[in-house]
Amino acid sequence: MVEDAVRAALLEDWGRAGDITAQATLGPDTRARAVIAARQPGVLAGLDLAATAFRFADPSISIETLLDDGARLAPGDIAMRIDGPARGVLSAERVALNFLGHLSGVASATARFADLVAHTAARIVCTRKTTPGLRAFEKYAVRCGGGANHRFGLDDAILIKDNHIAVAGGVRAAIEAARAFAGHLVKVEVEVDTLAQLEEALAARPDVVMLDNMAPDTLRKAVAIADGAVTLEASGGVNLETVAAIAETGVDLISVGWITHSAPVLDLGLDIEIG
Amino acid sequence: MVEDAVRAALLEDWGRAGDITAQATLGPDTRARAVIAARQPGVLAGLDLAATAFRFADPSISIETLLDDGARLAPGDIAMRIDGPARGVLSAERVALNFLGHLSGVASATARFADLVAHTAARIVCTRKTTPGLRAFEKYAVRCGGGANHRFGLDDAILIKDNHIAVAGGVRAAIEAARAFAGHLVKVEVEVDTLAQLEEALAARPDVVMLDNMAPDTLRKAVAIADGAVTLEASGGVNLETVAAIAETGVDLISVGWITHSAPVLDLGLDIEIG
Amino acid sequence: MVEDAVRAALLEDWGRAGDITAQATLGPDTRARAVIAARQPGVLAGLDLAATAFRFADPSISIETLLDDGARLAPGDIAMRIDGPARGVLSAERVALNFLGHLSGVASATARFADLVAHTAARIVCTRKTTPGLRAFEKYAVRCGGGANHRFGLDDAILIKDNHIAVAGGVRAAIEAARAFAGHLVKVEVEVDTLAQLEEALAARPDVVMLDNMAPDTLRKAVAIADGAVTLEASGGVNLETVAAIAETGVDLISVGWITHSAPVLDLGLDIEIG
Amino acid sequence: MVEDAVRAALLEDWGRAGDITAQATLGPDTRARAVIAARQPGVLAGLDLAATAFRFADPSISIETLLDDGARLAPGDIAMRIDGPARGVLSAERVALNFLGHLSGVASATARFADLVAHTAARIVCTRKTTPGLRAFEKYAVRCGGGANHRFGLDDAILIKDNHIAVAGGVRAAIEAARAFAGHLVKVEVEVDTLAQLEEALAARPDVVMLDNMAPDTLRKAVAIADGAVTLEASGGVNLETVAAIAETGVDLISVGWITHSAPVLDLGLDIEIG
Amino acid sequence: MVEDAVRAALLEDWGRAGDITAQATLGPDTRARAVIAARQPGVLAGLDLAATAFRFADPSISIETLLDDGARLAPGDIAMRIDGPARGVLSAERVALNFLGHLSGVASATARFADLVAHTAARIVCTRKTTPGLRAFEKYAVRCGGGANHRFGLDDAILIKDNHIAVAGGVRAAIEAARAFAGHLVKVEVEVDTLAQLEEALAARPDVVMLDNMAPDTLRKAVAIADGAVTLEASGGVNLETVAAIAETGVDLISVGWITHSAPVLDLGLDIEIG
Amino acid sequence: MVEDAVRAALLEDWGRAGDITAQATLGPDTRARAVIAARQPGVLAGLDLAATAFRFADPSISIETLLDDGARLAPGDIAMRIDGPARGVLSAERVALNFLGHLSGVASATARFADLVAHTAARIVCTRKTTPGLRAFEKYAVRCGGGANHRFGLDDAILIKDNHIAVAGGVRAAIEAARAFAGHLVKVEVEVDTLAQLEEALAARPDVVMLDNMAPDTLRKAVAIADGAVTLEASGGVNLETVAAIAETGVDLISVGWITHSAPVLDLGLDIEIG
Repeated sequence: MVEDAVRAALLEDWGRAGDITAQATLGPDTRARAVIAARQPGVLAGLDLAATAFRFADPSISIETLLDDGARLAPGDIAMRIDGPARGVLSAERVALNFLGHLSGVASATARFADLVAHTAARIVCTRKTTPGLRAFEKYAVRCGGGANHRFGLDDAILIKDNHIAVAGGVRAAIEAARAFAGHLVKVEVEVDTLAQLEEALAARPDVVMLDNMAPDTLRKAVAIADGAVTLEASGGVNLETVAAIAETGVDLISVGWITHSAPVLDLGLDIEIG
Repeated sequence: MVEDAVRAALLEDWGRAGDITAQATLGPDTRARAVIAARQPGVLAGLDLAATAFRFADPSISIETLLDDGARLAPGDIAMRIDGPARGVLSAERVALNFLGHLSGVASATARFADLVAHTAARIVCTRKTTPGLRAFEKYAVRCGGGANHRFGLDDAILIKDNHIAVAGGVRAAIEAARAFAGHLVKVEVEVDTLAQLEEALAARPDVVMLDNMAPDTLRKAVAIADGAVTLEASGGVNLETVAAIAETGVDLISVGWITHSAPVLDLGLDIEIG
Repeated sequence: MVEDAVRAALLEDWGRAGDITAQATLGPDTRARAVIAARQPGVLAGLDLAATAFRFADPSISIETLLDDGARLAPGDIAMRIDGPARGVLSAERVALNFLGHLSGVASATARFADLVAHTAARIVCTRKTTPGLRAFEKYAVRCGGGANHRFGLDDAILIKDNHIAVAGGVRAAIEAARAFAGHLVKVEVEVDTLAQLEEALAARPDVVMLDNMAPDTLRKAVAIADGAVTLEASGGVNLETVAAIAETGVDLISVGWITHSAPVLDLGLDIEIG
Repeated sequence: MVEDAVRAALLEDWGRAGDITAQATLGPDTRARAVIAARQPGVLAGLDLAATAFRFADPSISIETLLDDGARLAPGDIAMRIDGPARGVLSAERVALNFLGHLSGVASATARFADLVAHTAARIVCTRKTTPGLRAFEKYAVRCGGGANHRFGLDDAILIKDNHIAVAGGVRAAIEAARAFAGHLVKVEVEVDTLAQLEEALAARPDVVMLDNMAPDTLRKAVAIADGAVTLEASGGVNLETVAAIAETGVDLISVGWITHSAPVLDLGLDIEIG
Repeated sequence: MVEDAVRAALLEDWGRAGDITAQATLGPDTRARAVIAARQPGVLAGLDLAATAFRFADPSISIETLLDDGARLAPGDIAMRIDGPARGVLSAERVALNFLGHLSGVASATARFADLVAHTAARIVCTRKTTPGLRAFEKYAVRCGGGANHRFGLDDAILIKDNHIAVAGGVRAAIEAARAFAGHLVKVEVEVDTLAQLEEALAARPDVVMLDNMAPDTLRKAVAIADGAVTLEASGGVNLETVAAIAETGVDLISVGWITHSAPVLDLGLDIEIG
Repeated sequence: MVEDAVRAALLEDWGRAGDITAQATLGPDTRARAVIAARQPGVLAGLDLAATAFRFADPSISIETLLDDGARLAPGDIAMRIDGPARGVLSAERVALNFLGHLSGVASATARFADLVAHTAARIVCTRKTTPGLRAFEKYAVRCGGGANHRFGLDDAILIKDNHIAVAGGVRAAIEAARAFAGHLVKVEVEVDTLAQLEEALAARPDVVMLDNMAPDTLRKAVAIADGAVTLEASGGVNLETVAAIAETGVDLISVGWITHSAPVLDLGLDIEIG
């Protein structure tokens, strides 16, 4: 999967004729030595994709990774050294940095949230609000940043929302339909908006209950009601200001769409010496 | 290309077994009527991708678009109506919103910059710092937001940087090598860091000169030096605070990586009625 | 996914020049009316794939399905009527029947097992011992035949075997590592060979325990030990002679590789009238 | 083709997140030594696919093949040794065995038929009744088991059946149409149901005549009538009880759909030592 | 296959941003009416590919074909009418003409050879010297021009050359090895350079003998020697000046690489009325 | 891109069963030593594709290239030495030669034109009249032959023709629309048929003007009128007889469709020693 994604990104950047600037101005034997360094603090993710981009561009490029995905970066920290033909290094530079910056951005955003709840047992989890085509990589970056993963897709767990409940004829009926349909290794989660719905849901024994858009006080009551019988996930209205208070209510999980759909890129640059 | 991207995103979300929640809880004949509405102000982009997602999920879903890409959105504005089998509508919802939110986010971010320079002749342009796999769509979204496009890739224009100049033996030599190598419909841009380099570059008659990381005062001098002979692009240090002052220097173009690599998603939601 | 699989199978059969017999001997306007009928008793699965094969061969072919997947078939029962250009019908015939026969074979094999345990609460489940390239379809056919699905792949649930336990440092350590690594919607199953291992596993509270190659008496003791705390899956040594006794021990699930890896094709034929 | 099929099968098994059990419980440096051994007698086929699966999972895995495809296996015979990182070995195990078991099953089934006719000049041939997506591999496995191949698809030879004859206006007309349409390297086979049809067909000089569903006595008469002028293929009603008698009639070929569409898997297992 | 080839060619022409000239200068509602007309005499081939290009570009484009593939064209003859949105028509024009011109070129070249041997029983056949990616279409165009097809590839017939004979240990051994390896529907052709080799080959009873680079007198002797026992193919030194004399020797087939690898394009143009 | 094209071409030639002649007659250990040599004068292009074909067929084949793309070839010149398993060498031979012959044909055709205008400043450029699927390679071959490239596709430059002008409301309006739509690195070319149109076009300051189907005298006047303000491209009626006179008019570029759509293959052969 790494290879497919990198290859597609390189073809997207190279188009039909490749790096014509490099072809026009650099000889085939010109060499480049480069490092990828952090320009701001954050968490590293995506080294393998970046390295693959350089190797695809020219298999003779040598790569040395100095840090691992998940490493905390200070400005100036060097993640990778690259050495090889200049045409190959330059033609892969942007793709390598686009992957590395985007995924490190996701990891860094996750870490900011995770750090704020580190004094509790709550974990930050991602959602399906990911960038089309990059979900598996973004979920990986979330783990690099100290978060955990929610569903990878519509097929690997059941998440019952109000529309499903309405059509199925109630929470119990919906959960029973889910259990009957899905295999024994598929978990069932139910979304509730009120404490009354929570109590109804608990009776049907789901694996997880999502508490949607509840204030910390309500969340705290929900934790008391559930009393450890199910995993509780808080969702909605989560940001850097609110996350600590939410975590302190005792919920198990806090899902945050922002860490995958809106995380700004982490600024990493390629410092290069050619000739 | 729209079809390929949507198809890949749906398969990414559906995995091997599709939307098992819908399969378990909704009958095949249950219908849904839904609208996609803005939750915050912004600029719309990506309607075609969203519509394609629903049609792929079930060709019998009918789509009515009420707005066009590029439309300014107020909270509550409805972009699209969807009517069809509930299983199809729900199984495409997240992918449709992921595309629409991401691209509308890019368009909205572009519009914020474009609005700030609307009193000048300068245009906001994007860069190659795009999300891997989505470049053509993001470039389209930039145009929806009132920006213009830079190179689509390494192959459709020449952009000479300091490394190329160093190896090629100077600005003039680099530009001549570029002209000799590339076809007659390929433009040549050169990046300069100082006004001295600008003068040297102008002598070689490139089509465009990129002024990298120059303060407004320096940019203003560059504009005077160039005196209309080439297109001037300001690059580096551009943000919502600085962009107006940069535009007022008289440069033709201002390139902003942030609008593609770090634009937060625009919040759009699906309001649905099932049964 | 249906379309991709059918398309690949048609290209596999058509090669570079298509159905040269039909091209040589049938005019482009010759028409065919055909039915697909059962030649032996069984359970139907794969109608959508068969219909798609005919439609790909010629979009003007009309299809009428008379039965649904999951239907019990007696010899002579007609599953589908096909009407259209003879060249199209004949060029898709073999691919349609290959899919339909194979998947109905899997459904029929599953039904034979499921029927034998229908007097108990045990369910027949499939394994990952599937035909390469056809897993999702075979898992669907298992459901058509009255069985349930195990994991779809290595990524959607955790199944800890002895090697994992040995390296991880014991059952408890392995399950804790699994819980820490996987998302909250991922279930954890552990394989045990003895009742002692079962007791050790239960202490670590997995979601499911697989009882590998245990005789009915042992299985019955395992059911008593577990006492409803986890789901129990019997595995190994399951065949048409043993399955009822295994089910009567009280296990929840009985996994059978044979229904996907060795089920003989169900004999279905195309009766055609041309001209 | 081997690489494409193996790659697709691995992605089918790995899904979006790969072998999460191995990732959770095994360190990246844990090593595994394993052998693939027969659990029952049969004929080996598919070593290359199995080896490719391990190599794709981790290029550093070393493979030693101890037997060749086509080898007769006794229980316990070791086909292959595998040595490398445990995560890679385990993540490819199932796919490797699924290919190897399926293709060895086809080879073994073919060998059972071939052994029963070894005292005659008749050869066992396969049909187009193959598993979608695996035809070329199954045809190869048939050769490993001592059989021969029929058409690979609709495009590489002409096989005229009664419907073609009816539309074309008789056997002679059909064969002439076939010869006129097809290139000079394409053979023409005609299917007949009766001896009268055989005589009519012989007059038109096809390359091969398929004798469909004839009893041994009728087949013997057909052999006498044809008198060596064409290749004769017996088809229909062939099973392990009847095949010897059919072969003894003097026909050249006996086609058996069962060896590709219903052959049970050959039981091969991976014995592994980890850590 | 038509769809795949057309789609790939359109993407090759459209690149990342499509027909930017049409987007910039034509409104989305501008319509175009066009005809494809011959500019020189020849034989038509490829209508389906051309029509598919327009339909892919815009499904609302209507196509009317006035002639069939294989038609003899005079200058000014109209092959196809196209009516629809101008952007779609113009964006598909070049791809449609590239296919139609290339394949009609192959058909026309074939017809020139076929016409010159029409007074004999000899047929013009193509070779494997085709344009990479277009073989099946070029073979089809050869048939449109009145020629016949040789092998489609290395897998659908056996063609034994001197190197094979040398390694196999003589003509007889090579043919026996071929018969033993290949299925009963695979023909065997042998290449010979001299009449002595022809006699040796005939003793081994191949299906076809290729007479390589023999002068007409030698070919005439070869025809006498073979005396109808095998199909004879003349190969080498065939051009528009020599082909009639070669055909008059009595050979069955004359293979010409030129008709596929070097046929000039047939000049066809699109006459368009927009607005 | 080289790898994709070669791989597709090999699969096109190998079909489902590969080189059955080689499999039947050559042992797996038989070796071959071969050279690729020119049989006629010309210009070499495509070495990388040819080498890749052999390496794909068998990674153990060693390749030594003795010449570079762009080299002038005399009959007998050796371009490449190949050494490896005979099965691999023979199974890649035809594909390697098809690529090399086709692309060297394009390069040689280009060189014939380029040689005829070498005494002028005019350059030979190709068009979009290329072989579907091979455009990027043919454009490369044009450069090998001493020519230059026009647009790679519809997206990398704007070329305004009479239809666009009519709809856009005149030359000036069309060019302004183009400049407003396209990015700052996209050039604009306009096609004119008369000198009056040329003057109108010049007022709108395009980057390039295409002078369509003008006689040398008219071209000479056009050069005088333009007076260096734009690049001038002569198009139409260009052949080996007329090209020198056209070049001598002072135009900058002469576009020739023939060099890509109708160039005959360059005759290169594989001389092989096996065993």
